[in-house]
Amino acid sequence: MKILFVISVCLILILGSCAQKPHPCRAPPLLEGKLTVHVPGEKIRVYEKFYYDAFGQNVRVVAYGKEDNKTIFADRLLLFREGVKYDIHYHNQTCVKTALKVSFIPVEVPHDAHFLHQLVIGSSSRPGEGLLVNNWEGIVSQTKEHYFMSFTEFGCLPIYSIYFTDKMNVDIMTSFYDLVNGIEDPEVFIPPSFCDSVKLREAKDDTETNFFKALL
Amino acid sequence: MKILFVISVCLILILGSCAQKPHPCRAPPLLEGKLTVHVPGEKIRVYEKFYYDAFGQNVRVVAYGKEDNKTIFADRLLLFREGVKYDIHYHNQTCVKTALKVSFIPVEVPHDAHFLHQLVIGSSSRPGEGLLVNNWEGIVSQTKEHYFMSFTEFGCLPIYSIYFTDKMNVDIMTSFYDLVNGIEDPEVFIPPSFCDSVKLREAKDDTETNFFKALL
Repeated sequence: MKILFVISVCLILILGSCAQKPHPCRAPPLLEGKLTVHVPGEKIRVYEKFYYDAFGQNVRVVAYGKEDNKTIFADRLLLFREGVKYDIHYHNQTCVKTALKVSFIPVEVPHDAHFLHQLVIGSSSRPGEGLLVNNWEGIVSQTKEHYFMSFTEFGCLPIYSIYFTDKMNVDIMTSFYDLVNGIEDPEVFIPPSFCDSVKLREAKDDTETNFFKALL
Repeated sequence: MKILFVISVCLILILGSCAQKPHPCRAPPLLEGKLTVHVPGEKIRVYEKFYYDAFGQNVRVVAYGKEDNKTIFADRLLLFREGVKYDIHYHNQTCVKTALKVSFIPVEVPHDAHFLHQLVIGSSSRPGEGLLVNNWEGIVSQTKEHYFMSFTEFGCLPIYSIYFTDKMNVDIMTSFYDLVNGIEDPEVFIPPSFCDSVKLREAKDDTETNFFKALL
């Protein structure tokens, strides 16, 4: 009886410690917020408002920033399921409609990512003063790129991601903030009427991409 | 009567909007946690466990890291009120005791810092999924250095600080995490007994420093 009790206690402890190790996770399917993208090699720094719909496989970004001291602005709608990308120019009511031949890859910690460490940004002493996050690293199987990423423990929300070049220089660094669960205006995924009659152009390349890369 | 009501409403709105703008703040007086310091120019990247006591004006840091591919380790006790700095080497029970002629500058958003913006790291949709922070910038009056810093809205806890060189390259970048209000072991500010008989050395320089700089 005593042995059974000891075995039970050991099993509970083992299972408890397993449960505490964070597992790769997927971000909420409907998400909007802001992000900054930094591409040091090309001197690009972009601020974006984004809308993300993993159910419909749609992404909309409104971006402004600097590329080599030149101001850039973009309003882009990516409809992955339809295989179409719209570059929308409201100021002159024009549209560029391009084939999007890449797969939709959701915002997530990839299943084969390696858990690095868990930390609290701020303090865990009082509620509202800290945020528990998990840091991950891994290699993209298709491109062999090394990455680091940080997601919240609760809610699986992206905090930042860094993709490296093969020489371990920073390729793309993305920081997320002001995230909200849900999409306030679902019409952001419907192209404006002046895009209807535009002819489809062929895509320049069809390399696989994920959310972090598709924004550029 | 109607005019009085309108004036009252206007006053409430004005006072309300004033109250909402974040003000410079000072971190809790007793704090311990971890930080990383990055000095790109000197290729220094250091991880530190720190203990901070603004009441007694004491700081203890245990640091390990890399300087130009060379591993560095330091255990340093800064007693600002006594004007003494100890470099403690437990492995051979030795101590280097140096005069500390700099003033104690607390962990704070300086009173003349300029408020940049408020943002949520993560999401504000559910408790525990986000952290409200304020970003600040300013210029150190003594050294004319430009800085950016981020502190939590609740609790005034440091998240990161970046000091720039006069050419706006990153000089020192410090990120804080795993912070706890209070000091678990107050003896961290008492030098070990093998430091008692050590003679005081004169300091090399006496430039004013703050918490972020004193750690190096």
